[in-house]
Amino acid sequence: MKISIQQNTLSKAIGIVQRGVSSRSTLPILSGVLLRAINDELILTGTDLELGIETKVKCNVIEEGSIVLTSKLFGEVVRKLPPEEISIEADMENNVHINCGNSKFNIVGQPYEEYPQLPELDEEKSFHISKELLRSMIKQTIFATAQDETRPILTGALMEIEKSEASLIALDGYRLALKKVKIDYSEDIKVVIPAKTLSEVSKIVDEDESDVKISTTENHIIFSAGPTVVTSRLLEGQFLNYRDIIRSEYKTKAVVSTKELQSSIERASLLAREGKNNLIKLDISDDTVVITSNSEIGDVYESIPIKLEGDNIQIAFNSKYILDGIKAIESEEIELYLTSNVNPCIMKPLNDESYTYLVLPVRLA
Amino acid sequence: MKISIQQNTLSKAIGIVQRGVSSRSTLPILSGVLLRAINDELILTGTDLELGIETKVKCNVIEEGSIVLTSKLFGEVVRKLPPEEISIEADMENNVHINCGNSKFNIVGQPYEEYPQLPELDEEKSFHISKELLRSMIKQTIFATAQDETRPILTGALMEIEKSEASLIALDGYRLALKKVKIDYSEDIKVVIPAKTLSEVSKIVDEDESDVKISTTENHIIFSAGPTVVTSRLLEGQFLNYRDIIRSEYKTKAVVSTKELQSSIERASLLAREGKNNLIKLDISDDTVVITSNSEIGDVYESIPIKLEGDNIQIAFNSKYILDGIKAIESEEIELYLTSNVNPCIMKPLNDESYTYLVLPVRLA
Repeated sequence: MKISIQQNTLSKAIGIVQRGVSSRSTLPILSGVLLRAINDELILTGTDLELGIETKVKCNVIEEGSIVLTSKLFGEVVRKLPPEEISIEADMENNVHINCGNSKFNIVGQPYEEYPQLPELDEEKSFHISKELLRSMIKQTIFATAQDETRPILTGALMEIEKSEASLIALDGYRLALKKVKIDYSEDIKVVIPAKTLSEVSKIVDEDESDVKISTTENHIIFSAGPTVVTSRLLEGQFLNYRDIIRSEYKTKAVVSTKELQSSIERASLLAREGKNNLIKLDISDDTVVITSNSEIGDVYESIPIKLEGDNIQIAFNSKYILDGIKAIESEEIELYLTSNVNPCIMKPLNDESYTYLVLPVRLA
Repeated sequence: MKISIQQNTLSKAIGIVQRGVSSRSTLPILSGVLLRAINDELILTGTDLELGIETKVKCNVIEEGSIVLTSKLFGEVVRKLPPEEISIEADMENNVHINCGNSKFNIVGQPYEEYPQLPELDEEKSFHISKELLRSMIKQTIFATAQDETRPILTGALMEIEKSEASLIALDGYRLALKKVKIDYSEDIKVVIPAKTLSEVSKIVDEDESDVKISTTENHIIFSAGPTVVTSRLLEGQFLNYRDIIRSEYKTKAVVSTKELQSSIERASLLAREGKNNLIKLDISDDTVVITSNSEIGDVYESIPIKLEGDNIQIAFNSKYILDGIKAIESEEIELYLTSNVNPCIMKPLNDESYTYLVLPVRLA
């Protein structure tokens, strides 16, 4: 393999595929990135076997070929080279010669034959979505996926396409986040995507201008954004029937300023943190919500004006879970829906059905 | 005690004195900040007994008095309050009531009588220095203080005033950094200041517009910057006679671009890091310095043009120590002075005697 390529072009491409490389892999070859020079392109690949990321860049291919280079070292070398043309040549012994300006590196590579092949997938269903929509869907739900592995299916988010509407749903047993968007696709899809995959996709689409094509097979999902393709295994198993959890009946509806609610709960949580459970109490009555919390070191009392419909209610929450939801809501005002102090609270942006956050209360003794 | 004060004024003052509070103190009262309301001022104090920081702000004193509040919690509460007037009132039981807008906090305080008094010091000698000069003196030397406690005196920097010249010197057995500036003061001073003190002073003067007054007593040093006073114990013991280490004879003088030298050594150190000692080799001959390094995973060869006077030389260094010095030099070109491959290398900014960095070579087998 022999190529020459601009430093900044290569550096950016390495940054993308490195997201697929695990630093904790037990298989040494997986700490590398695969370089393939074909026609007038360099194709780079990083994978941890669950998730694979491939991108391609134009370059001057003097001799076609392939090589695997340690991801971390190769990335750092390229990033630290001057913004000039880099020549990369792999010899028969897999030694790689990298020349740029007055710098000459010789780095031991690994044979490309040892690198695992990404699965060849026949895309069964596929649709397009704008990168802004995809990013906001991920950002508004991913934090609600389960962090522990006791129920593996909950470490992913459910993507459900029905009647030209795409939903992304995450839940961890304490709260649920649901984002819906309209798309131009009429078939049904129902898959559970690992949170890590969604997180990497969200970062990658950030760096690219194109819309994203999403394709699914029985066991995989493929995100294509410009020259970059992210392939991920799907999680196996049955996701919870989330529709049963989100009830539409309520006895109390309150509309409150998002910013004031967030600031007050953040202040209250300073004391809640000192106690157990990050416990804060909300007392909603008439035109005010009073937020209180206490611990050995003191107590706090916050009051915010609200617009109330329905019954007064007193209810307690883990402040972290309720704050996560408030931060995911972008509108200036939030609607809170409550039924009793043992039923979930539902939060939505004002007059906007596209986002739903549901959080379980803490039962007080 | 009862006061009212603007949120941003109080928040800034807490940020300053919190630098003096240790998070690892064994004495509970030291995790607090002392508040004293006197005349029309609030005086705040934080200390870990080695280092004490005091600052004062104007406020509306309704009732004079003093109280100690947990530094971390008090700081966070004030930072999260809206930018309005805050009322703070301590009652007879040391409970503190903090009110601002629609927020009411009650926090358990501690009696001010238990807070240690900062030493009352008679300033023996004192001089003024501009904050820019003081900051650059600290920044260019502090990194060369010893990190381990085997020779406690080397965890500080020597401040030496002689013939209207102030020098700050730090060394750790592997390298030495020396910065000299002219000041308007003719007496002699020789004290060793803990690195932590210098680091905090550097951050505090950053936030203030005033010049700094430095005063010394037998065992203490006092930095006064506007409304803020930093008092620190001095380190006891004899500092190394650094003048004996910095020789003026040399056999090789090379002038090289600071940026090129830094980039090349940074790249070389990517491979040096993989081996032992971060070892890089410099081969200075004629009009070029060649920098090489190698490890199991590969090798690197960098060449940079130089202006050479004197002998050719081959010498090896720990790349970290030489990089620290290059980064501390602000001029576009660096002068390197060398004698042999077992004698120290001295680095200076081009045509500038105010800064000296000395680094020991690594002897090759």
